[in-house]
Amino acid sequence: PCTSGGAHVDACDAPLLVRFLAVRARTVQLIAHLSDEDMVVQSMPDASPTKWHLAHTTWFFERFILRERSPGYEPFDDRFDFLFNSYYEAVGARHPRPMRGLLTRPTLKQILEYRRHVDTQMRCLLGQPLEPEVDARVQLGLAHEEQHQELLVMDAMHLFAQSALKSVFDPEWPLAASGRAAGFRCSGGGWARIGASATHFAFDNEGPQHRVWLAPFAIADRLVTNGEWLSFMSAGGYQDARFWLSDGWEQRCAEDWQSPFYWERHGDRWFQMTPASLQPIDPAAPVLHVSYFEADAYARWAGARLPTEFEWEHAVRTVQGLEQVYDTAWQWTSSSYAPYPRFRAAAGAVGEYNGKFMSGQMVLRGACIATPPGHARASYRNFYRAGQRWMFSGVRLAQDVD
Amino acid sequence: PCTSGGAHVDACDAPLLVRFLAVRARTVQLIAHLSDEDMVVQSMPDASPTKWHLAHTTWFFERFILRERSPGYEPFDDRFDFLFNSYYEAVGARHPRPMRGLLTRPTLKQILEYRRHVDTQMRCLLGQPLEPEVDARVQLGLAHEEQHQELLVMDAMHLFAQSALKSVFDPEWPLAASGRAAGFRCSGGGWARIGASATHFAFDNEGPQHRVWLAPFAIADRLVTNGEWLSFMSAGGYQDARFWLSDGWEQRCAEDWQSPFYWERHGDRWFQMTPASLQPIDPAAPVLHVSYFEADAYARWAGARLPTEFEWEHAVRTVQGLEQVYDTAWQWTSSSYAPYPRFRAAAGAVGEYNGKFMSGQMVLRGACIATPPGHARASYRNFYRAGQRWMFSGVRLAQDVD
Amino acid sequence: PCTSGGAHVDACDAPLLVRFLAVRARTVQLIAHLSDEDMVVQSMPDASPTKWHLAHTTWFFERFILRERSPGYEPFDDRFDFLFNSYYEAVGARHPRPMRGLLTRPTLKQILEYRRHVDTQMRCLLGQPLEPEVDARVQLGLAHEEQHQELLVMDAMHLFAQSALKSVFDPEWPLAASGRAAGFRCSGGGWARIGASATHFAFDNEGPQHRVWLAPFAIADRLVTNGEWLSFMSAGGYQDARFWLSDGWEQRCAEDWQSPFYWERHGDRWFQMTPASLQPIDPAAPVLHVSYFEADAYARWAGARLPTEFEWEHAVRTVQGLEQVYDTAWQWTSSSYAPYPRFRAAAGAVGEYNGKFMSGQMVLRGACIATPPGHARASYRNFYRAGQRWMFSGVRLAQDVD
Amino acid sequence: PCTSGGAHVDACDAPLLVRFLAVRARTVQLIAHLSDEDMVVQSMPDASPTKWHLAHTTWFFERFILRERSPGYEPFDDRFDFLFNSYYEAVGARHPRPMRGLLTRPTLKQILEYRRHVDTQMRCLLGQPLEPEVDARVQLGLAHEEQHQELLVMDAMHLFAQSALKSVFDPEWPLAASGRAAGFRCSGGGWARIGASATHFAFDNEGPQHRVWLAPFAIADRLVTNGEWLSFMSAGGYQDARFWLSDGWEQRCAEDWQSPFYWERHGDRWFQMTPASLQPIDPAAPVLHVSYFEADAYARWAGARLPTEFEWEHAVRTVQGLEQVYDTAWQWTSSSYAPYPRFRAAAGAVGEYNGKFMSGQMVLRGACIATPPGHARASYRNFYRAGQRWMFSGVRLAQDVD
Ligand SMILES: [Fe+3]
Ligand SMILES: [Fe+3]
Ligand SMILES: [Fe+3]
Ligand SMILES: [Fe+3]
Repeated sequence: PCTSGGAHVDACDAPLLVRFLAVRARTVQLIAHLSDEDMVVQSMPDASPTKWHLAHTTWFFERFILRERSPGYEPFDDRFDFLFNSYYEAVGARHPRPMRGLLTRPTLKQILEYRRHVDTQMRCLLGQPLEPEVDARVQLGLAHEEQHQELLVMDAMHLFAQSALKSVFDPEWPLAASGRAAGFRCSGGGWARIGASATHFAFDNEGPQHRVWLAPFAIADRLVTNGEWLSFMSAGGYQDARFWLSDGWEQRCAEDWQSPFYWERHGDRWFQMTPASLQPIDPAAPVLHVSYFEADAYARWAGARLPTEFEWEHAVRTVQGLEQVYDTAWQWTSSSYAPYPRFRAAAGAVGEYNGKFMSGQMVLRGACIATPPGHARASYRNFYRAGQRWMFSGVRLAQDVD
Repeated sequence: PCTSGGAHVDACDAPLLVRFLAVRARTVQLIAHLSDEDMVVQSMPDASPTKWHLAHTTWFFERFILRERSPGYEPFDDRFDFLFNSYYEAVGARHPRPMRGLLTRPTLKQILEYRRHVDTQMRCLLGQPLEPEVDARVQLGLAHEEQHQELLVMDAMHLFAQSALKSVFDPEWPLAASGRAAGFRCSGGGWARIGASATHFAFDNEGPQHRVWLAPFAIADRLVTNGEWLSFMSAGGYQDARFWLSDGWEQRCAEDWQSPFYWERHGDRWFQMTPASLQPIDPAAPVLHVSYFEADAYARWAGARLPTEFEWEHAVRTVQGLEQVYDTAWQWTSSSYAPYPRFRAAAGAVGEYNGKFMSGQMVLRGACIATPPGHARASYRNFYRAGQRWMFSGVRLAQDVD
Repeated sequence: PCTSGGAHVDACDAPLLVRFLAVRARTVQLIAHLSDEDMVVQSMPDASPTKWHLAHTTWFFERFILRERSPGYEPFDDRFDFLFNSYYEAVGARHPRPMRGLLTRPTLKQILEYRRHVDTQMRCLLGQPLEPEVDARVQLGLAHEEQHQELLVMDAMHLFAQSALKSVFDPEWPLAASGRAAGFRCSGGGWARIGASATHFAFDNEGPQHRVWLAPFAIADRLVTNGEWLSFMSAGGYQDARFWLSDGWEQRCAEDWQSPFYWERHGDRWFQMTPASLQPIDPAAPVLHVSYFEADAYARWAGARLPTEFEWEHAVRTVQGLEQVYDTAWQWTSSSYAPYPRFRAAAGAVGEYNGKFMSGQMVLRGACIATPPGHARASYRNFYRAGQRWMFSGVRLAQDVD
Repeated sequence: PCTSGGAHVDACDAPLLVRFLAVRARTVQLIAHLSDEDMVVQSMPDASPTKWHLAHTTWFFERFILRERSPGYEPFDDRFDFLFNSYYEAVGARHPRPMRGLLTRPTLKQILEYRRHVDTQMRCLLGQPLEPEVDARVQLGLAHEEQHQELLVMDAMHLFAQSALKSVFDPEWPLAASGRAAGFRCSGGGWARIGASATHFAFDNEGPQHRVWLAPFAIADRLVTNGEWLSFMSAGGYQDARFWLSDGWEQRCAEDWQSPFYWERHGDRWFQMTPASLQPIDPAAPVLHVSYFEADAYARWAGARLPTEFEWEHAVRTVQGLEQVYDTAWQWTSSSYAPYPRFRAAAGAVGEYNGKFMSGQMVLRGACIATPPGHARASYRNFYRAGQRWMFSGVRLAQDVD
C-alpha cells in the first residue's frame, strides 16, 4: 500500500505520472454538464452508462496493475471486480453487458471515490521507478481510458438523442467545420511500411510492422460533405438496391434508413443530433454517423471506392495535403479487421484486449472530434461492425489510378 | 391560476384537500432511501422508473383536473404532456413505454418542483367548493397515485434484484409475518351482491353492482405458506406437467422456473429478495411472488382450487375468521378480468383507465403489504397477466363443498 | 390382433362401426384436390400439415384404443408414437410442434397405409360388443378426427393463401351465402341450463351441466355481414384506438391490420381467400376470419356487445328464429375459456384433451362451414386466442335489454 | 421460338450443348431417391427446397438467356418469374426467401415439365452458332446450376437430419475416406499470381487476376481429421473461451455447440449425419461441417493458423503433395470475402451474382465431395458466414515459417 503519498514529484522525474493525472482528470472533465441521473442509464446494448465508463477505466488500473504489481494493495470493493469487468473471460464472471444500465449502485459519488482511491495508489506507484512491463501496462491503461473517453461522448449523446428533450452534453462542443470540397491526390503505391514501430506505445493490433505492396491510387484530401450526401439522397441513393451490398440493403430496409443516423427532418430543413443538441445540417461540413454500408454505397454511387487501410496509412505518411485526418471523423476503409501477419495476442487477460474481436468488423482509420488529442496515429486501427452508426464516422474516398 | 394560496383551510372544511396532501406526501416518503440514480432506471418493460411514477401521477392531476377545470392554469412544462402520459390514446402521442428509463431529464429535482407546482394549484382548487365531477376526478387521481405507490415499490425492488448488490429499498420494511397454517371455512353460497355501491369512491371496473348466484364453497382462512410451497417443490411440482396449464408449462420451461420469482438458493438455504434486501425464507410466512400459473398448479397439486373473484368477495363480506385479506399479498382468483354486466367505460380519456385492459388478464383480490393503507376494499379488482410475478401475489385456496 | 376381418357386420348391429367408417372416409375425401406435396408443408406454427392431420388422428385411435384395449395389437411403426403425438405429456416425448412440416417421411402413401392398418384393427374391435369406456373412447376419437377435419381445411387454405398462385382446396366449396341483415331478438333471461347432459357424447369441457342466471338480453338473429364490416372500415374502425382493447390495438399496430384476415384489395374491389381460391367480397354475406379483438371493436363501434357463452347457449335453445347458428362461422363470445364449476379433467393422458388449455383463450360457439355436419351442438365450446384469425370466425351481436 | 428441334447435333459441332445436357441431366439424377414430398420443404431460412433448386436453375436460363436472346421465346409461365427469382433486385419483386417452402405449387411434375420446356429451347439455341456474350452467359448458367447441385445435397441432408427418421439422400453416397494424418509442406512465398485468367470460364469474383506478395509459409498436405477434432474436444476446446473469437464464443454459447454440426452421441459413440443417413465417426477421416469460428479455434489450440486465400491458391499451384484439395471438404481461409483490386460487377442483374455479397463472409477454397466434378479450380472462391455449418466444410492448417 501506498504510504508516501507520492506528492511533489516533478514532471521531469515522473512524466508518466503527469500523463496519468492529465488523462484521469480529462475523463472527469467530460461529465461537467451531466447530472448524476444522466450517468446511470444505458440507452442501447452497444452503449454503456457514463458511470460505468468512469468505473471500468478505474477497474482496469486496479485489476491489471495494482492487484498484480502493487504488493499489499487493498481493493476498494471486491464486488467491483464482478461489476466492472467488461469482457475479460480470463478474469472471471461479470455483470452482463446489456444490463450495465441497471447498476444504480454504486452511486456516482462512490465511483468518484473509487477513482480517487485508485488514483492515490497509482500516484504512489508512478512516483517510483517502473519496470518496463509495468510502464507498458500503465500506457495501455491510459490509452484504454482515452478510448472510453470517446465512447463516453458517443454513448451520452446517444442517450440524449432518445428523448424529445435532446439535452446538451456540452454547450461548447464545436460543430464540424465548413470547408471546401475534396479533391483527389495521387500516390504512386509501391512497398508501404504498415504498422507501428516499437519506439512508442501502440496497441497490439497495430503490429507486427510489415510491408505491403500497393498499386498506384488516388485518395481524397478531405471528407465527403453533408451537401454531397444530400445529393446522394436526392438521387435516390437510399432507395436503389444497385448501390448497396446485400447485407446493407437488408439492414437499410429493416431499419428504414433514409439518411445518416441522427439526422431528423423538421419542415424542409435537416438537423442532426450533436453533443450540443440538435443543430442544422451544414452542407459544407463533413458528413457524420454513417455506417460502412452507407459509405460503401455512397462511394459506388460517386464512381469511387473506399481506400484500403493500407492505402490510407501509406497516404497519410506520404501524400501531401490531406486534411481532416485526425480531427473530424473516423474514416471507413474497405479492409476487414484482421490480424497482421504473425500477430499473436499477449498471454493472459490483457491478450483479450483486441485480438478476439478480429472477425465481423471493418477497419476505420484516423480519429474524430471526440477522440482525445494525441490519442491516434497513422498506424491506429479502429473497428466497428458494418451496420453501426452511433460513432463519429465519415467517408474519405479513393480511386484506382492507371 | 391560483392566487389565494389556498392556505389555512381546515380539515373539516376541506377533507379532500387533507387527503390530497397526505397521499401526495406519502409518495415522496417512499423514496427516502433511494438515490437520484436509483430513480431513473427502468429494469424491464413492465416496470417504470421511480421518477416516472413521481411525474406521471402529477401529470394525471394536471392533465385531467387542472388543465380541464382550472381556468387559466399554466402548465409547468408543455413537453411533460408527451413525456408522462402513460397510455391515454385520446390525449395524444407519448414517449414509448419501454423507453421510460431513457428519460434522465427532467431531473428528479425538476420533477419534485413539478410536483410542488401542481400541488400548489391543487391546494388552491381544493380549498374551494368543488363540483361533484371534479370531486370524483380528484378521488380518482388519489386512487391512481396510491396504485402507483405500490408499483413504485415493486419496480424499485425489481431493479435492486437485478444487481449483485441487492440494495435496500427500505431498511424498516416489515417481513411477511409467520403464522399458523390455513384451515378451510364454509360458505353456503346463494345470491351474492357483487361490486361497489355508489356511496364511496370505487374504480369503474368495480361496477355496476349486481348479484351472482354462488354454490356452497369452502375458502382458506389464511394464505399458502412458504413451507407448503417447499413441499410442492420437493414433490416435483415444478417438474410435472400434469399439474400445469399448457401455457404455464410452456413459460415455466422457457424461463426455467424452479421456485417463486425472487427466490435464490445459497448453499442449502433459500432466500428471497424483499424491499429490505435478500432475506431468508420463513416457512411459516405466506408465499409471495408467484404467477397465476404457479398458483393454479399448486392448487391442483394440493387437491384444491383457486376461488372465483365472486366467491372471494362474498366470503370476505360474510365468512368469519378470514385473515391476511388486505395486509399480505394479492390473492389470485380463477376469474378472468372482464367487464361486469352493463359496464360502460366513461367517455373521454379517463374511460381508458380500466376498460381497455379487460382481456388476457386474471383478477387478484385483497391487497398486499405494499398497498397504501385504506386503498383496497372488498369489491376491489386488481389484475395481472397469468405469467407475471414481480408483484406481491400469493395464494388463498378454495374448495367445492357438497 | 384382428383375425376375423370384422366385415359383413350390419349397421344395426354395429352403428359405431358404421359411423367410424364414415368419419374416417370423410377425412380422406377432403384431400381429393391436394397433391402429395401440398400435404407435407406447415405454413405457420399454429397450422399443421395435412399429412400430419391424417396420421395424428390415426395415432389417436392406435394410442388410446388399440394399444390399450386390443390385446396383442401390433403397432404399425413404433416411431409414429414420437412423430404423431400432438401434446400429450403423459404419453412421452414428441416431435416439436413447429417442426411438423419437416416430416417429409413417412410419405403420404405410408400414412394412408397406416390409416388402413388401424382401420382394419378398429373394424375388428368395433364388430364386437364394446365395454362402455371403450365405446366412449371411440366416440372421443371420432369427435377428435372431426375437429381435425376442420383444422385440415383451415390449414390447407392458409398454406395456399401464402403463395401468389392462391391454389384451390376444393373447387366445389360453397361460398358464404348472401342474405338479409340481422335483427335483434329478445330473451327474458332467468335460470339457464348450461352444458351437455350425459345422454349423448360431449367433450369434457361441456360439463358438468349446471345452471346460470341470466339477465334479459337481445341477440342478433344473423351474423354481421361484409357490408356492415366495410362500413366499420370506412368509418375508420381500424384507425381509432377508442374502439379497441389495449392488447388488440397493440396487435393491430404490430401486424398492421386494415381488414379481416384473408382480405386483399385489388384496384377498388375487395377479395378474400376461400377454399375455392380468391373470391370477391359479397357485402350481403357474413364476415369471416376476424379475431376476437376485431369482433369486440366492431361491437363497440356498433353500439352493441358480444354475447356471453351462456347467453348464446340459452338463446340457441330458447329463442325462435336464429339463423346461421351452425352452418356459417364460429361466433365469438365475451367469455374466457374456463372450466365449468366442479370440472375435473379425466385421469391419464386423455385428461389433457381440453383442460390444460383453459387459460388465455376466448370461447366461440356454434360451428362453421368447415365443421363436419352433426359435429357441433348447443353446448359445444370452441376456443381460440383473442388474436387468432385463420379459422372461420364471425360475429353475432348481443345487447342489454331494460 | 425453336422450331428445328435442334436434335442430331454432334458433340464436336456443339460441345456447349453436350455440356448443357450433361449438367441438366445430373441435377435430375440427384433426386433419384427423393419423394415428391421431400422436395417441397425448406428446413431453415438458409436452405431451399429441392424443387425450388430445380425450378430456379431453369429460371436462370429462361430469364437471362431465352428471354433476352431468343426472339419470340414464349415463357413457360409468367408467374415463375416472381416465384423463382432468388435475389436479383434488378429483375423485380420476388417470393420471399424464407417462404420458399410454402410453394407446394407448381408441383414437381410441372417443374420437370418447365425444365423440359426450357431445355428444348436451349437445345435449339445451342445448336446454332453463338455470339460470345451468349456463350459466356450459358457457361455462367451451367456453373450456376452446378452450384445449386451442391446446395441441393446440403439442403436435402439438412432436412433429413431434422427428423428422427434420418432418411437417406443417396444410399451409394461415399463416406469420407480414412487416411493418414497431415504433415506440413513449405512454400517460399514471393510474388504469387492470384485469380483466374481469361482463357477459361470463371466467376467474376475470381478476377481481376493480380499478384500478391507472400511471406514463406507452411501448409498442411491433408485436412484435419475427426480423431484430431476429438482430441480438441477432450482437451476442452469447446469450453475454453481463450481459443475463440468473441463472436464465435457468443454463438457457441447461444447455440450450445459441443461438437461439429451433425454430430450426435449415442451411448459412448459419435455419429454424424451424412447423405447416407447417420454414420459412425471415423477418426481417420477428415472432419466436416465445422464453422469458421470452430476452425479458427481449433487452429489456435493446435498452435497453427488458417491459411489466407492467397497462400492456399499459391500452394495449390506450386506446392507438391497436397491431398484432399477438391474432393473432400471446402477449406476455411482467414480471408474475408472482398473484391479483388479493380473488381467491377457487371452491369445489369447478372452483376448481382457475386459482388453484392462481399461483406460479412469468409472465403473457403477447394471443393467438397458434393461439388460436381470439374466445377472448381485453384482460383475458385466459395464464401459463407463465419457461423454457418451445414455445408461440407473442413480445415487445412497453415503455419508461419521463419
Ligand atoms: Fe474497456
Ligand atoms: Fe397511471
Ligand atoms: Fe389432436
Ligand atoms: Fe441461384
